[in-house]
Amino acid sequence: MKIQDIARLANVSVATVSRVINNNDNVREETKERINRIIKENNYYPNIIARNLSKKENNTIGIIIPDIKNLYFASIMDGIVNEANRRNLNIILGCSNENFELQAKYIELFIEQRVKGVIIAVTQNSYDKIDFFDQTSSKIPLVLIDRKIDKQMPGVFFENFYSVYGVVEKFIKHGKKKIGFLAGPQTISTAKERLDGYKKALKDNGIKYDKKLVLYGDFTLESGYNLGKEILEREIDAIYISNNSMTLGFLKVLKELNINSENIKIATFEDNEIIRFIDEKIVSYNMPFSELAKKSIEILESLLKNDTSNTTVEINL
Amino acid sequence: MKIQDIARLANVSVATVSRVINNNDNVREETKERINRIIKENNYYPNIIARNLSKKENNTIGIIIPDIKNLYFASIMDGIVNEANRRNLNIILGCSNENFELQAKYIELFIEQRVKGVIIAVTQNSYDKIDFFDQTSSKIPLVLIDRKIDKQMPGVFFENFYSVYGVVEKFIKHGKKKIGFLAGPQTISTAKERLDGYKKALKDNGIKYDKKLVLYGDFTLESGYNLGKEILEREIDAIYISNNSMTLGFLKVLKELNINSENIKIATFEDNEIIRFIDEKIVSYNMPFSELAKKSIEILESLLKNDTSNTTVEINL
Repeated sequence: MKIQDIARLANVSVATVSRVINNNDNVREETKERINRIIKENNYYPNIIARNLSKKENNTIGIIIPDIKNLYFASIMDGIVNEANRRNLNIILGCSNENFELQAKYIELFIEQRVKGVIIAVTQNSYDKIDFFDQTSSKIPLVLIDRKIDKQMPGVFFENFYSVYGVVEKFIKHGKKKIGFLAGPQTISTAKERLDGYKKALKDNGIKYDKKLVLYGDFTLESGYNLGKEILEREIDAIYISNNSMTLGFLKVLKELNINSENIKIATFEDNEIIRFIDEKIVSYNMPFSELAKKSIEILESLLKNDTSNTTVEINL
Repeated sequence: MKIQDIARLANVSVATVSRVINNNDNVREETKERINRIIKENNYYPNIIARNLSKKENNTIGIIIPDIKNLYFASIMDGIVNEANRRNLNIILGCSNENFELQAKYIELFIEQRVKGVIIAVTQNSYDKIDFFDQTSSKIPLVLIDRKIDKQMPGVFFENFYSVYGVVEKFIKHGKKKIGFLAGPQTISTAKERLDGYKKALKDNGIKYDKKLVLYGDFTLESGYNLGKEILEREIDAIYISNNSMTLGFLKVLKELNINSENIKIATFEDNEIIRFIDEKIVSYNMPFSELAKKSIEILESLLKNDTSNTTVEINL
């Protein structure tokens, strides 16, 4: 069924049918009703790709996140969905599963679908792929969220370095001497910045860096569990754990070994209801996910207006 | 920059440029390289919407889920993303936030974008919207997952009724007499079927149904917490809780009231690593999310081949 067929059945011109489909008022009410009835009876679905093609845009933005099963990214996503609804934007999501190739595939797909722009929390191993992101942002407005790459680009990021710095400094001021650190993959900017914050806080407060107190994981519950067992043998009196999943893994070890968390001061980057529920004494931040969502969409809209000033924001926790 | 401009710069016909873009081998290697270089230098991005328009399809399927922050749906989504990757399909996701209007908007959007089909876990209040789903499935292949509507439609569902029936029957055989039930919104088929399973198990095992032992929540942590406080005043010796979030809320009450979970037998529908982590004695199912994902995509592909036999599957737990 084509628009021509509808026009023939309604005994009007193709232009008239087109006006009705596009809610143009310049058609008599009676004719409009007749055409709409015929459209409905024939299950005609207007070829809106063609309409978008002529309009050269639609009202959709693409989002790419690396791990949908992680509550941190689910919360970011939730914030963006809600903000987009408020602004009458549609969201389409790609899940990259920390896979760079899949991420590239989703970007291509979104460009093909003519989204207005893409908001992206990049996969690990994206940090030094400057060429890729240069090329991509020449094709479509791109706003990074949460994770940076090795190049100044429009984006919204949480303040990782000073958040960790502040917590570790507090630990030291409260008399903690052996502060362990469970790090994330160092190919992710957030994991790297958190570790840097830890190192600097030790240095500025006169505590020697001990590499045996720093273990490297992959942000999963399993790695938190395995590294937890290892680090607990080193008589730490406090620990900073770089993300929520590794924190859950660490808490599992404490439970299995029947260790009271009163004896080890624990901190992690982001608050969430499950961690708080398991142990409300854990030091963490109540993350401003909705602020990140709001700013990322605002930046995208600035880019669409070719306003490239103030397009990088760091949100303090 | 149009395809005509590329052709002019490369001193070839538009048809030749088109062949290169579409990876058609029928072009000399030297010419192909020259054209690709010009495309790259000029940041030309082929108008793939127009290509899709002429092909009338692309390799993308749309998914709609009601709540992205719920680990149950995140796990379903994760299964579908992985299965789609295996089959070289692209996924775009809409999050309906349990909002029927938003769900309708995403379906329209996906149709506009010419996805192959839509896999959908419907929002609450979708159960009796038969006209809406009839209309939708006349426009695009539609596969329901997890939640049913009041009409036989292609879909993949978990066995809710007998799962709950089996657990409650076991409770009774183990001597439990006052079995509480925290129900979900009865406008969702899964919540309704779980409650029906509870009622039937009581009946078949000679226990009188006591409506004071059944409380109705909305599938959130908060409602599990509030209903938990209420039901614990009724001296239950076992409880079935209809979803994961309400179970977390219930466990929070136990913790606050310092009640040992040994004294109340607890069951919930789906296993997940966080619930297992908090209390491994909770009775639950290890959900076959990947089977659901696989079957839903298989059914979608059958529909695309106009094979409508065997398109409803119930997965036993």
